[in-house]
Amino acid sequence: MEQITKVWLGPLPADSPYVKPFRFYYVQNGKEKNWDLLKVHDSVSIVLYNTTRQKLIFVKQFRPAVFHGIVTTDGGNVDNVDLKKYPPSLGCTMELCAGIVDKDKSWNEIAREEVLEECGYDVPVERVEEVMTYRSGVGSQGSKQKMYYCEVTDADKSTSGGGVDDELIEVVELSIEEARKMVQQGSDNNSPPSCLLGVMWFLMNKAPKQ
Amino acid sequence: MEQITKVWLGPLPADSPYVKPFRFYYVQNGKEKNWDLLKVHDSVSIVLYNTTRQKLIFVKQFRPAVFHGIVTTDGGNVDNVDLKKYPPSLGCTMELCAGIVDKDKSWNEIAREEVLEECGYDVPVERVEEVMTYRSGVGSQGSKQKMYYCEVTDADKSTSGGGVDDELIEVVELSIEEARKMVQQGSDNNSPPSCLLGVMWFLMNKAPKQ
Repeated sequence: MEQITKVWLGPLPADSPYVKPFRFYYVQNGKEKNWDLLKVHDSVSIVLYNTTRQKLIFVKQFRPAVFHGIVTTDGGNVDNVDLKKYPPSLGCTMELCAGIVDKDKSWNEIAREEVLEECGYDVPVERVEEVMTYRSGVGSQGSKQKMYYCEVTDADKSTSGGGVDDELIEVVELSIEEARKMVQQGSDNNSPPSCLLGVMWFLMNKAPKQ
Repeated sequence: MEQITKVWLGPLPADSPYVKPFRFYYVQNGKEKNWDLLKVHDSVSIVLYNTTRQKLIFVKQFRPAVFHGIVTTDGGNVDNVDLKKYPPSLGCTMELCAGIVDKDKSWNEIAREEVLEECGYDVPVERVEEVMTYRSGVGSQGSKQKMYYCEVTDADKSTSGGGVDDELIEVVELSIEEARKMVQQGSDNNSPPSCLLGVMWFLMNKAPKQ
């Protein structure tokens, strides 16, 4: 699904709307210290469960930051990445449906919109329930994320999803047993911890009893 | 514990060893796209359980990125932060014992060292067992984190912990019931999702049966 044909790297422009890096200075215990960080948007994520087919719904997409991390940690040249040696599929992740909070709308409404845009389920905002709040990337960016839970049925499906504009997002359905493997000891995931947290929360609180 | 008396912000120096921001370019589906990201270190985290007192062990510390995120989202002035309006305790997080992979040592050995440096328990590396692997911050940095599990006893305690050099890390012990509240529906945590994932994994797999 990734259809990537070329990859290269450049400097961060000073006017990037997405990544704003700073050096943060503070005096702690009488001593001046500093910490390098960046400002990113707060976000929502949604644990989505289709009760008609008893499947958890995820999104799969090419994540430049993950691909870049894999290539550079391996010592690969990122000025013009060798896509035979590093196939772009390495950078594809399984995640919860999610989105950034960059509109003047309630967080619940943004969550509802992401469920529709990314996964194609059209549900009223009342069916999106808040689960918990945490801080992502406490080392480098510390943004807030709220996790939601939403049960959908085949009857709620209104589009095929896949994101808006240029987004290339694949909707992936996993059975409960398949999702359970993501959080088993020894698992090696191209997923963020928030996704695994959502899976585990679902297994403990919402999964139909065997 | 934070003892912060002044906070201000400056530009990111080009030679920051911790945050290296880039613009990543790629051609997907015949169309040129870009994504702003940064390179950060891979890391380890450790779910630490003291079996003598049946307590989970966490670390609490002031996190500049979290504090910065809270102040800026609220519209506060970060050139010289008003610490009466924004007490530094807002930026204190509860996390798993953790550390970055920046030494030429095995990941397990780095995990073992963090358990000693941050929490004061001196255990052989064989007692640090791997749990699972995931990708943190898939939107902006995509680094790898491995989670470990380690059971310790009071007899393993060799120092008070607290980190090395200038680190100011408080070791916090929570009962299983207290930790369970962190992952209940409605909880609002100054913790990263990886910490909540670790708590939930412990509750499902390791917690003594009631």
